Amino acid sequence: MTAVGASLPRKDAFDKLKGVAKYIDDYNFTDLVHIFTVRSEHAYGKIISIDKTEAEKMPGVLGVVTCDMVPGKNIVPLVMFDEPFLAKDYVRFHGEPVALVVAETYEQAVMAAPFVKVQVEPLKPILTIKESLDPNAPKLHGTDNVFSKYNVEKGNAEEAMKKAVHVFEREYTTPYQEHAYLETNGAIAVPGIEDSMTVYGSMQCPFYVHDAVAAAAGIEKNKVRVVQTTTGGGFGGKEDFPSVVAGHATIVAKLFNRPAKLIYKREEDIISSSKRHPSLVKVKVGTDEKGKIVAAVLEYYTDGGAYSTLTPIVLWRGTVHALGPYECDHIHVKSFGVATNKVPCGAYRGFGSPQTVFAAESLMDEIADELHMDPIELRKLNCYKLGSRTATNQVIDQSCGLLETIERAQEHSKWTNKWANPATKTGNLRRGIGISLVYYGVGLGAGGKKLDRCGSSITLLRDGSVHCAVGNVEMGQGARTVLAQIAADALGADFSSVNVVETDTALVPDSGPTVASRTTFMSGNALMLAAKQLRPSLLTAAAELLEAASPDDVELFEGKAYIKADKNGRSVSFKDVCGKLYDERLMPSAFGWFKAPDSNYNQADGQGNAYFVYSYCTNIAEVEVDMDTGEYKVLKITSAHDMGKAINPQQVEGQIEGGTLQGMGYGTTEEIRHDAKGKMLNNAFSTYILPTFVDAPEIEPIIVEHAYDKGPYGAKGFGEVPLMGVAPAIVNAIHNATGKRIRSIPVKPEKILGLDE
Amino acid sequence: MTAVGASLPRKDAFDKLKGVAKYIDDYNFTDLVHIFTVRSEHAYGKIISIDKTEAEKMPGVLGVVTCDMVPGKNIVPLVMFDEPFLAKDYVRFHGEPVALVVAETYEQAVMAAPFVKVQVEPLKPILTIKESLDPNAPKLHGTDNVFSKYNVEKGNAEEAMKKAVHVFEREYTTPYQEHAYLETNGAIAVPGIEDSMTVYGSMQCPFYVHDAVAAAAGIEKNKVRVVQTTTGGGFGGKEDFPSVVAGHATIVAKLFNRPAKLIYKREEDIISSSKRHPSLVKVKVGTDEKGKIVAAVLEYYTDGGAYSTLTPIVLWRGTVHALGPYECDHIHVKSFGVATNKVPCGAYRGFGSPQTVFAAESLMDEIADELHMDPIELRKLNCYKLGSRTATNQVIDQSCGLLETIERAQEHSKWTNKWANPATKTGNLRRGIGISLVYYGVGLGAGGKKLDRCGSSITLLRDGSVHCAVGNVEMGQGARTVLAQIAADALGADFSSVNVVETDTALVPDSGPTVASRTTFMSGNALMLAAKQLRPSLLTAAAELLEAASPDDVELFEGKAYIKADKNGRSVSFKDVCGKLYDERLMPSAFGWFKAPDSNYNQADGQGNAYFVYSYCTNIAEVEVDMDTGEYKVLKITSAHDMGKAINPQQVEGQIEGGTLQGMGYGTTEEIRHDAKGKMLNNAFSTYILPTFVDAPEIEPIIVEHAYDKGPYGAKGFGEVPLMGVAPAIVNAIHNATGKRIRSIPVKPEKILGLDE
Repeated sequence: MTAVGASLPRKDAFDKLKGVAKYIDDYNFTDLVHIFTVRSEHAYGKIISIDKTEAEKMPGVLGVVTCDMVPGKNIVPLVMFDEPFLAKDYVRFHGEPVALVVAETYEQAVMAAPFVKVQVEPLKPILTIKESLDPNAPKLHGTDNVFSKYNVEKGNAEEAMKKAVHVFEREYTTPYQEHAYLETNGAIAVPGIEDSMTVYGSMQCPFYVHDAVAAAAGIEKNKVRVVQTTTGGGFGGKEDFPSVVAGHATIVAKLFNRPAKLIYKREEDIISSSKRHPSLVKVKVGTDEKGKIVAAVLEYYTDGGAYSTLTPIVLWRGTVHALGPYECDHIHVKSFGVATNKVPCGAYRGFGSPQTVFAAESLMDEIADELHMDPIELRKLNCYKLGSRTATNQVIDQSCGLLETIERAQEHSKWTNKWANPATKTGNLRRGIGISLVYYGVGLGAGGKKLDRCGSSITLLRDGSVHCAVGNVEMGQGARTVLAQIAADALGADFSSVNVVETDTALVPDSGPTVASRTTFMSGNALMLAAKQLRPSLLTAAAELLEAASPDDVELFEGKAYIKADKNGRSVSFKDVCGKLYDERLMPSAFGWFKAPDSNYNQADGQGNAYFVYSYCTNIAEVEVDMDTGEYKVLKITSAHDMGKAINPQQVEGQIEGGTLQGMGYGTTEEIRHDAKGKMLNNAFSTYILPTFVDAPEIEPIIVEHAYDKGPYGAKGFGEVPLMGVAPAIVNAIHNATGKRIRSIPVKPEKILGLDE
Repeated sequence: MTAVGASLPRKDAFDKLKGVAKYIDDYNFTDLVHIFTVRSEHAYGKIISIDKTEAEKMPGVLGVVTCDMVPGKNIVPLVMFDEPFLAKDYVRFHGEPVALVVAETYEQAVMAAPFVKVQVEPLKPILTIKESLDPNAPKLHGTDNVFSKYNVEKGNAEEAMKKAVHVFEREYTTPYQEHAYLETNGAIAVPGIEDSMTVYGSMQCPFYVHDAVAAAAGIEKNKVRVVQTTTGGGFGGKEDFPSVVAGHATIVAKLFNRPAKLIYKREEDIISSSKRHPSLVKVKVGTDEKGKIVAAVLEYYTDGGAYSTLTPIVLWRGTVHALGPYECDHIHVKSFGVATNKVPCGAYRGFGSPQTVFAAESLMDEIADELHMDPIELRKLNCYKLGSRTATNQVIDQSCGLLETIERAQEHSKWTNKWANPATKTGNLRRGIGISLVYYGVGLGAGGKKLDRCGSSITLLRDGSVHCAVGNVEMGQGARTVLAQIAADALGADFSSVNVVETDTALVPDSGPTVASRTTFMSGNALMLAAKQLRPSLLTAAAELLEAASPDDVELFEGKAYIKADKNGRSVSFKDVCGKLYDERLMPSAFGWFKAPDSNYNQADGQGNAYFVYSYCTNIAEVEVDMDTGEYKVLKITSAHDMGKAINPQQVEGQIEGGTLQGMGYGTTEEIRHDAKGKMLNNAFSTYILPTFVDAPEIEPIIVEHAYDKGPYGAKGFGEVPLMGVAPAIVNAIHNATGKRIRSIPVKPEKILGLDE
């Protein structure tokens, strides 16, 4: 098992460092046409007319595509099928695609776009959750502007609340978050023989795009091939939105019968691609005298924007995790995803959970404060241990390292030395320390059960090299490396000879999306199942070469085969074993197919096994605040994680570092603002403020391994977790430094100074 | 079983008719470099120096690549590993690749090529089989100039010959044959991430090319992907040679780290790509009084050219089939593939057999003539029936429709009315009728046993469409259609929803070459095995939808599922069944893997089961000869075939028509000539004379189906067979018209007139 558990170098690192990696904008095809998108300049309105005449006379312009020209269906195939590829009758957010200018060059398409005259009768837009839920509001969706709502109810929270010794009730709000992947969205659609269509692009979910291409082109799915090109970051932002971009490229490629390229400018990407949902969380928690939680009632509202995209499933995850990893026999969570006239929101690392984590972890700190407890002690008292039951009444029956993450983070951060009541602090520069806990259901859970399966394909080559294909993608998170480690050990091959190729829908069955921290677990298991099918042939071939009595007597390990009973005796190379396998005409390929362990969940009361397993995390943040200006520095984040097994510890640490910085941005600087008409005001990185390496605190990653018996080598999943609890840990640290409680992120200096509540 | 057996339209027909199909020269990639090949102007010589200086100064030239620059190994990986990608030390045939000029445009590469100064010390070339076997000849290969030799010996032919009542001894010679595929050779190599290489090209054997790319680039096989582009004909000519072309493109792509395109001009293709081997066959047959063969001794010599390429296996097939489908207890065949300083010979439809078929079938006619027998009666007397033993002592135990093909062809051609002794014929225009029989071992046989396996992959899509991948290619023979028919019936899907994609080595395991009439049989079986794995899931899903008690109660047929006991009752669509399969997360993909039935063969005496099954054919040719000029017309060919099962009768007829015309060219007009220095004289279609549609005779195809129990729906293979016996049938018809026996094809008028023997 030498590959698994080792910090092996990333397969994609060298090409990316050398600038050799090919992103979608690096691809070109002969006879390519270029696309630029004409967008709505109104947040809400009725389309009166679209006049293409002038635009179509512009140099190089081949045509302007509008909704009536879509060869297939003008609906993006996502959860609720409510979003058109191109606006029809109404525009519903500022920046919504209305038409596509097609030209010989990109510049020509850009030049012509302003000449497409879109006449709109403006309507008053709905811009907030509260406006949307006003009974008198115009209806953007259904009869109540609610895309979806959930109910999780265990025990009788309302009754139990009455018996609580202490009751705490608060409201918290969170902002949009822009993914800010380095590579903007882009796709190239290439018409092939016999009405086929191949689409190349930057994406997380090639099988979603596969659906979108078939729908947009109006062709059968077996005529579609989607090839993920090297993807410069996703973070959830390339879950749903590439379906739109690839759909547009497909529509043009089909209509003009030429390869069609669509690459977004940063401004376009920010205003039109999905974001993290802004939220309002109302939370009421009752405890006994000692701080043990006895009842909790939560209301969770998210702003879904103009179309539902992934709102229903994002909301579901946030709902079932709403209180955080704390025991509570009586809990009631209600949640609502509502429609507004703003950019549709979708997936972002954490997927509806960071919002409720912020609320719950802030409240836990407020409780500790009021009860004069050390916040860590309050959490240890209430947090999940083996045998605990979740809000959905699921028993945590294995792989629960939460308490160990608390203890390790506490120790490494020297919490006990550093934590002190804010009232005791004086001076201009004040330091504080804060904590948050996170638990995270791995995979799609009961809400996405039908998609929670995964395929892989392994082919052994005659020269002993191994070709693996998976349905989940590499988007910078290191999947191709980690999965190669798993495949290498599962086969007994050497890591260096295993190649997990970039994802191509022709190579593997639909494996669902690359989201929900599911890739290591799902694709890892799928590769292990494929390897399991190939091992008997490998062992048979090895046994013949080694003249062993039986394949059972042979072991394959690190690219060598030997007789088990004589480990230091004669060995043959994996290459020779593969050669023998070929000579014997044994099958060198296998598909692996893994179904996620079953969940069992009742949507009506939200009770049951929401996820098959959970990962856990403790964040401890340390800050220093300038009491005069409200400016602050995040000094250090200690981030301890139980992900079951760290297949590649260095990559785990990398994920922790990246996620921590993203979580810090969410808590401290990132927000999106709109003007009164619903136009987004900050559509560039000069106005949407991301933390840079200069702002980065010291980050101390800690790995805690409580193996999951169904995981590949014990691994669960954890890619999203490092982001999720950083904001409340910082907010709690700021409170610990200053005594100032902030219930609305990002924490700007003016909020610390009380100038902007 | 409605798809199989129906003359369904070809999947590739519409795109080819519309001009939409994309051949390799239609592909381009950004940043492409172009290659033109510098070739030897000597048939044999020692390379003194190669001066690139002037060429590299020419406009647009990026460099000139010579053998010392090959990144991997400078050896084309074929049977014997004797051919360099680029000549080293010696040139061995006129036209051999010596260097590659790499430039920004094709024209620039062509312009610069003459400025590469290759200084060669000429050596006297060996140009014929006889020269090569002269003990005093210089040695081009080994110690005897023999690439390979075989011995097939059953009984004691020399002793038995002594007891024969009649003994016939003759020599026959056959010429080169150029494949004359419409599309010349071409490839584009595209360097990918992490040292990978993808090669697109026109080819028959993507897995041979896969080997060549790995070898030329010096990379592991799991970093190589080979994609066959729409291929405009192969006929065997794109079995070995694309390894050279793709190898050259790969070398350049690797060295320059840019996509590299190499497309052959017709002249280059003719002078350097492999051809059908010229041959000399010495045959001696003894019969009893009635014409029953009692002994046969054959010597079969082929001119392999400068490198061995496929000579060993081409020779083997011709050797084991040497006498034709005639019983003979005492037979001795010796064969030799020899080296000369001419273009290397390789595969061509029939693969070493048409040469011996011409000899044996001519001799059979000569025997009938001398014994005053109807040539058909002589053949019926001697030919294989169930229970016969072949020259390798293999029992023909099933699927032997030879006699039926004779009878059907005899009847359809009205042979009995038409055949008359030539001596009875008078006048200037004389008609004649001639016959030949062919038998053909399907697949690679004992000689290629290790490669005789085949993979497939099937994926069911949610919309009920089916994606199939196979390792054998479509090269115009209709494979994608026939295989879609087999897959459709094996799954119970509708033919229209089944897509067999163009071959890509990333999609299926190494399936061996697309040769030896093996594709329908091998890939068909592989698809059936994949379908067999998917059917239980399909039936399970269907049973649930139909509320059947068990999947066993359900049948899937032509895109519908119903309860067996109630065929006219409720049905559900294949699409709905696939949807249910997806909802239940059942695995939608399967690999099929088929190993050819085992052969059991002793190379020393050539005894055993050479092939697992044989196909059979009777050709009857009718000609009209102008006795004054020697000019003649082929009036009609009746061609009756037992291929086990005609999966698509129309395509079978198309194969018969195409093969017949190719066989007619071989017998009548096609030949290649060299000057005394070994330079090929006819390197264009203006000088290499192919029959055109104007020359085409009436062709009457006849299908005879003697099912083979291991074949998909009973099919064997027969793609090559229609060509193989046409030349002797024509020669025999000419003899029947004129009394003139011609033992050297092509039959030119001057030969009929006795002016050129």
